[in-house]
Amino acid sequence: MDFLTGVKAEKTIGIQTVLTGDYKGKQVCMNGTVHNIRDMGEVAFVILRKAEGLVQCVFEEGKTDCRLKHLKEEAAVEVTGIMQPEKRAPHGFEIRLQEVRILSEPAETMPLAVNKWKLNTSLETKLSLRPVSLRNVRERAKFKIQEGIVRGFRDFLHGQGFTEVRTPKIVARGAEGGANVFRLDYFNKKAELAQSPQFYKQIMVGVYDRVFEAAPVFRAEKHNTVRHLNEYVSLDFEMGYIDSFEDVMAMETGFLNYTMELLNKEYSKELNMLEVTLPKTDKIPQVRFDRAKELVAQKYNRKIKNPFDLEPEEEMLIGRYFKEEYDSDFVFVTHYPAKKRPFYAMDDPRDDKFTLSFDLLFKGLEITTGGQRIHDYAMMLDKMEKRGMNPEEIADYLMIFKYGMPPHGGLGLGLERLTMRLLGELNVRETTLFPRDVTRLVP
Amino acid sequence: MDFLTGVKAEKTIGIQTVLTGDYKGKQVCMNGTVHNIRDMGEVAFVILRKAEGLVQCVFEEGKTDCRLKHLKEEAAVEVTGIMQPEKRAPHGFEIRLQEVRILSEPAETMPLAVNKWKLNTSLETKLSLRPVSLRNVRERAKFKIQEGIVRGFRDFLHGQGFTEVRTPKIVARGAEGGANVFRLDYFNKKAELAQSPQFYKQIMVGVYDRVFEAAPVFRAEKHNTVRHLNEYVSLDFEMGYIDSFEDVMAMETGFLNYTMELLNKEYSKELNMLEVTLPKTDKIPQVRFDRAKELVAQKYNRKIKNPFDLEPEEEMLIGRYFKEEYDSDFVFVTHYPAKKRPFYAMDDPRDDKFTLSFDLLFKGLEITTGGQRIHDYAMMLDKMEKRGMNPEEIADYLMIFKYGMPPHGGLGLGLERLTMRLLGELNVRETTLFPRDVTRLVP
Repeated sequence: MDFLTGVKAEKTIGIQTVLTGDYKGKQVCMNGTVHNIRDMGEVAFVILRKAEGLVQCVFEEGKTDCRLKHLKEEAAVEVTGIMQPEKRAPHGFEIRLQEVRILSEPAETMPLAVNKWKLNTSLETKLSLRPVSLRNVRERAKFKIQEGIVRGFRDFLHGQGFTEVRTPKIVARGAEGGANVFRLDYFNKKAELAQSPQFYKQIMVGVYDRVFEAAPVFRAEKHNTVRHLNEYVSLDFEMGYIDSFEDVMAMETGFLNYTMELLNKEYSKELNMLEVTLPKTDKIPQVRFDRAKELVAQKYNRKIKNPFDLEPEEEMLIGRYFKEEYDSDFVFVTHYPAKKRPFYAMDDPRDDKFTLSFDLLFKGLEITTGGQRIHDYAMMLDKMEKRGMNPEEIADYLMIFKYGMPPHGGLGLGLERLTMRLLGELNVRETTLFPRDVTRLVP
Repeated sequence: MDFLTGVKAEKTIGIQTVLTGDYKGKQVCMNGTVHNIRDMGEVAFVILRKAEGLVQCVFEEGKTDCRLKHLKEEAAVEVTGIMQPEKRAPHGFEIRLQEVRILSEPAETMPLAVNKWKLNTSLETKLSLRPVSLRNVRERAKFKIQEGIVRGFRDFLHGQGFTEVRTPKIVARGAEGGANVFRLDYFNKKAELAQSPQFYKQIMVGVYDRVFEAAPVFRAEKHNTVRHLNEYVSLDFEMGYIDSFEDVMAMETGFLNYTMELLNKEYSKELNMLEVTLPKTDKIPQVRFDRAKELVAQKYNRKIKNPFDLEPEEEMLIGRYFKEEYDSDFVFVTHYPAKKRPFYAMDDPRDDKFTLSFDLLFKGLEITTGGQRIHDYAMMLDKMEKRGMNPEEIADYLMIFKYGMPPHGGLGLGLERLTMRLLGELNVRETTLFPRDVTRLVP
């Protein structure tokens, strides 16, 4: 009988192992994809692409056991050779090739030059060829940084006593309501795709006090803009026993601080590659919605058309204002009008035209919506009645208020938008692995 | 201008803080939900429920500043009192109440006794009342352990050089094909919910060599059994540069070893509460599919009806065989018949009726399916042609093979099934927060 006991020892080594070990002048074995071949005549530079980065290999006719013409770009190979320090090579070393074993070969040559530093092609082409365009080292660096943001979110909240939950994406009724839902037939019942985990994360506050989820949400919005996606990853948390919605903003600020530090520490290679300077997050101004409108109207000589709505241009100007006046890329805009917020938002007891809620703007783009929620059953029923809603339709959700819920609040953060602003991209599709928009369902 | 700088200092403290600090005889402030009230006359025991566990508070008429009759079970409260060691209390201390501040109150009394040690009710009732039945400390402990499994999966793979990816759940065409897909209208295009991230994780192997994802998948199977769900969380990984599918099994064994250690270290409270003994995972036997059928037929005196299929009962017996003969709760069954595996599975070069694939059985239940995938473009087209498939329908996926892919393989693991077997539950719904099955779409 054969047994599996755990991860097998590998005969190949990675870049990090070479850099931290004593390999100078010694034989090493490494696998990777042939990223680029530069034939200089007697020698050729064969650049290997690995998840960790690029490795320069030197092919010498007669010293390497294969023919250069048999090597193709995008072939997967395992190479053996002598490691030599070389300042001009990536990571400061190269491998003088002795043997090259070809593990697999492409059938055709690449439809675009993924081995160029920058992909000189349209977004449209990049997205249509996404399965291969992502192999470009700068393209893939974006999503490595995105991984770091999600790690930061989870690790920080875990440290703050939050529990991670997994809530269903096929639901009977979406949390946000309205027309922007994808509908499907669920064994002859009407079902929807979850627009947000809102109801479920509130339910779970009654169980674990503090919860979070990082998962896809679905919105059938017909907007086809640079900042809209029809499927995106929502970083959600919800916390009980809050004194005010400011506790939620403080927690988000803590998350941002933690994550920028994590990125700085563990993703500096990718940040450098993309020439990204991390924003300061240690002191984020907060301003009331109505006050923000006034400030912007005064400074930029602009009329307030609708006192109960923020236009995208106004968001941009608020972002600009706080950058100019307080040198902050972020600003919390608080006390949104009740009519712009869902029924479960807690109204401001001092003026119920407004809510105890906030958006976080990052360089003038809304990346987070959050606030305090109603926790009192009677207050909830009252607000639903005023909006003409039928409590029976969401009886399962209302159950938690009927049987008792602590004061609580939370937020949802759009991962792709945060990544977009962080990397200075102008279209959210640049920071989405496989975007879903009104016209795009593949790849 | 007000600024947010990070997480606010809390005036309340948690159980862990009390246990690690010097609070004996000192005043502490703590929040929580009134889990249980036992009125003994002069004194009453008010048990607080917190995410971390239960806390015994002692109410004394005249010494505590409120009336006992004003305290309701499931009210959210903030209590202030003197901490005293008390061996018979949970965590070995109690709080002698001075002040009780009621933060919120339920409108009605609980429809079931969540404060009992075991919920003496049917699964049906538990699921219908899920938003509140999860407040039972043993119920919620199950999903805390489930959190630990997902953490183990991510942390282990991160340490093995894997990159976490997020792939779309609305797709043009599912990876597994067949009738078991949920269909939806996507802006007048036909779309499906992803049955698995298979195509996308393979695509991402060409980008990051090793990737993983922990996300929901959707299967419109009409089976309504104790082990089927129509939406579940799939723990998926895919790794390039493998020598054989055994590398994938070895990686999974590594994950199991790591995760059992993590659970043992950080989730022992929950494991004890549920009286769970963790299985041994350090030596998992592997057996060929056809050999496993023979072994079971011999030992249990059973006829082999269909040499190319495993019935659930046969899986149970294979599980029993390896428990009895090798004292292992796990067994890798390898070389599944090609006709039972999807087109992308790599056939065994020695006999193409079988594939280089495996299932992992845990106490006789399939919890993982995995194997080596085809990486060669011509081989892929050939296999698709034999199956009468049209390559144009999945051209975006085939692109990666056309332009070059390393040898690779991976697996998908059902989180709820693994949790179910780990906890000794008999129905997968017991280990699913909000199950979706043929009849269940709410809560």
